[in-house]
Amino acid sequence: MKPYSEMTKEELLELKRDLSDQYREFQGKNLTLDMSRGKPSAEQLDLSMGMMDVLSSDSDLTCEDGTDCRNYGGLDGISEAKELLADMIEVPADNIIIYGNSSLNVMYDTISRSMTHGVMGNTPWCKLDKVKFLCPVPGYDRHFSITEYFGIEMINIPMTADGPDMDLVEKYVTTDPTVKGIWCVPKYSNPTGNSYSDQTVRRLARMHPAAPDFRIYWDNAYGIHHLYDDEQDHVLEILAECKKAGNPDMVYKFSSTSKITFPGSGIAAIATSHNNLDDIKKQLKIQTIGHDKVNQLRHVRFFKDIHGMVEHMRKHANILRPKFEAVENILDRELGGLEIGTWTKPHGGYFISFDSLNGCAKEIVAKCKKAGVVMTGAGATYPYGKDPEDRNIRIAPSYPPLQDLITATELFALCVKLVSVNKLLEEM
Amino acid sequence: MKPYSEMTKEELLELKRDLSDQYREFQGKNLTLDMSRGKPSAEQLDLSMGMMDVLSSDSDLTCEDGTDCRNYGGLDGISEAKELLADMIEVPADNIIIYGNSSLNVMYDTISRSMTHGVMGNTPWCKLDKVKFLCPVPGYDRHFSITEYFGIEMINIPMTADGPDMDLVEKYVTTDPTVKGIWCVPKYSNPTGNSYSDQTVRRLARMHPAAPDFRIYWDNAYGIHHLYDDEQDHVLEILAECKKAGNPDMVYKFSSTSKITFPGSGIAAIATSHNNLDDIKKQLKIQTIGHDKVNQLRHVRFFKDIHGMVEHMRKHANILRPKFEAVENILDRELGGLEIGTWTKPHGGYFISFDSLNGCAKEIVAKCKKAGVVMTGAGATYPYGKDPEDRNIRIAPSYPPLQDLITATELFALCVKLVSVNKLLEEM
Repeated sequence: MKPYSEMTKEELLELKRDLSDQYREFQGKNLTLDMSRGKPSAEQLDLSMGMMDVLSSDSDLTCEDGTDCRNYGGLDGISEAKELLADMIEVPADNIIIYGNSSLNVMYDTISRSMTHGVMGNTPWCKLDKVKFLCPVPGYDRHFSITEYFGIEMINIPMTADGPDMDLVEKYVTTDPTVKGIWCVPKYSNPTGNSYSDQTVRRLARMHPAAPDFRIYWDNAYGIHHLYDDEQDHVLEILAECKKAGNPDMVYKFSSTSKITFPGSGIAAIATSHNNLDDIKKQLKIQTIGHDKVNQLRHVRFFKDIHGMVEHMRKHANILRPKFEAVENILDRELGGLEIGTWTKPHGGYFISFDSLNGCAKEIVAKCKKAGVVMTGAGATYPYGKDPEDRNIRIAPSYPPLQDLITATELFALCVKLVSVNKLLEEM
Repeated sequence: MKPYSEMTKEELLELKRDLSDQYREFQGKNLTLDMSRGKPSAEQLDLSMGMMDVLSSDSDLTCEDGTDCRNYGGLDGISEAKELLADMIEVPADNIIIYGNSSLNVMYDTISRSMTHGVMGNTPWCKLDKVKFLCPVPGYDRHFSITEYFGIEMINIPMTADGPDMDLVEKYVTTDPTVKGIWCVPKYSNPTGNSYSDQTVRRLARMHPAAPDFRIYWDNAYGIHHLYDDEQDHVLEILAECKKAGNPDMVYKFSSTSKITFPGSGIAAIATSHNNLDDIKKQLKIQTIGHDKVNQLRHVRFFKDIHGMVEHMRKHANILRPKFEAVENILDRELGGLEIGTWTKPHGGYFISFDSLNGCAKEIVAKCKKAGVVMTGAGATYPYGKDPEDRNIRIAPSYPPLQDLITATELFALCVKLVSVNKLLEEM
């Protein structure tokens, strides 16, 4: 088919009638499908059921250093869990603290601590008139919710295939002392699926921030979440790069096993310099006696080591890959050449990012919803929920069974076409 | 033996020689015993090993309302866990939020949220010049650490056998709008073991605070932690009392299963009014997608209901009771009638509170340490670690095996005698 923009009004009107008929057919199916969040499917969760067997009433719940994991203590985690997660996120084990079940919670607490107590001796942010964060867009809505909740002003930074626009990032970070952080999902980014290039990581690590308490909030959410064995993205390790560049304290790296074992019942971690770790522990020891060590031990006994974890991730990939490919194939087939949308084809992670014609995203998502398919809300991938071009839509292929996903994506493609036709007709 | 205060100088000097000999004997034993924290013993932890078996790879981890506990979601907890903990802390299930592994963490987060965002629309505390908390003393050191960490001024309120001195509490709360909270451990209080009388609870509930954002921080740490079947303390349910008194929003009730199942691997909860719950959830949904539902389910399947939990607590009591009685018997035998100390005989909880002669506590704890027995630091039971009379010592009988506990308590009693003799001699 030819690009919609080259069609005459009559052709578009004809097309609209045809698409509207198809849409009504979908409405008749009474679908209730959810593609809104990056949730693993039941089939993926089944992969980790063995975790429920590794500890039993006969088990010795003592860890290597003699700590009884059943009792109080262990503020920063058991050493074998530190080793496992350190290998997972490519840092030395002594640069890590193991937390509870959620890296989002760790990020929230990091911002909250900076508000009330400041970063390594600097003024608490709640005492400052203005605090700003850089937000590569499109990005992860829950990051933006945290900074919005704390009244931190968010500045959009366009994402490219290589990561955030580094000219803009450097300009802000090096000249504006109210810029205290940047949200990053460096690998298989949420939602674009792109990974930061070596050049981007090096430029980030080599910045000279105007604010001494500027930190990179490095959400390593999809570090080992590949879709393919042969085509895998690699991202330079940021702690080492910052250290090399003479900025050892400039980054907090977050991660968890949420999309490896059970979301909500995994273990999370922060990795950062010893100076930052000392700063964090001063607060952490007030907040808790320690996180769930039995669950840490459960993870270690289940995976044994990083090799076990990598093997486990292959099984996830085998379930996820056909879903991503199904979405990509339908988008290619239905929308290829029409010039009414572009989309990413990531090598890992949980999302495909779709850009429609400007001003169409909200309407597309609304149309999907009316026919029973819930997408992530349009705008959600931008600070304050405001996509200035109203064009980005996050597609989350992981949760629905394959057949449902195919139906949902076909509906989605149809809605894209229908809304685009309307848009073009309006503009005539 | 007669009271030390009635002894002559010669008698005291003779006694001192004898006690010093005994002390040297203890030093020769090279003891390394720990009575510093309220940790359950290994024997108590063994009681909950069955928890490791209730979920297996064959289990259906779906809860009653159809939620797959293995996936994201469930911000305020699964309904069956709410029911279990609601029964445990005597509130309706819809007044509760289930958290992660630590009620201390919930308390910290509650204060932190009040600092950054205020309580139910009131000014965030970080924007105020002064915030004060009332601290019944002796009390729980980790409570005081939280308020100290946030720069909240702490005011000592003497504990009586019926709870905090209510005349003083009412005076502060009703006249000083900078007083925003009071820390309470109402049942088997840490460290006195006393429980609040009905009169105390009613007076607390009926206060008219000067500050609209004043809250009672009700740490229900030992609600079902009885030592005896026949002699149990009962404390009026504070949420209901506050509601009756027209102050439904005035209390946060905290609890956890830390000293029921595994400390650090339990589940925690807050119970409060719907207004407060709505206020809390606005923040909680930014902080996390949800707590560990699998662990919530594990607790529910292990206990089945409150009756299972009460039965389980009897087994704890059977292990703890002989330890408490051993300490009490040794103190009676060694110190009875000497008038150099008083101590509590609680019906539950984890501590015995000991008051020495004024100005002796630090020295007693130091002497114990020199002979290999670590007690809770003297002063720890007071804000800022400052016991104005230097007399309170918290005894934690739970952790050491019975024989070690006996040895440690004998050493403790000896140190009390020795330090008291020195004190009396100095004053002559």
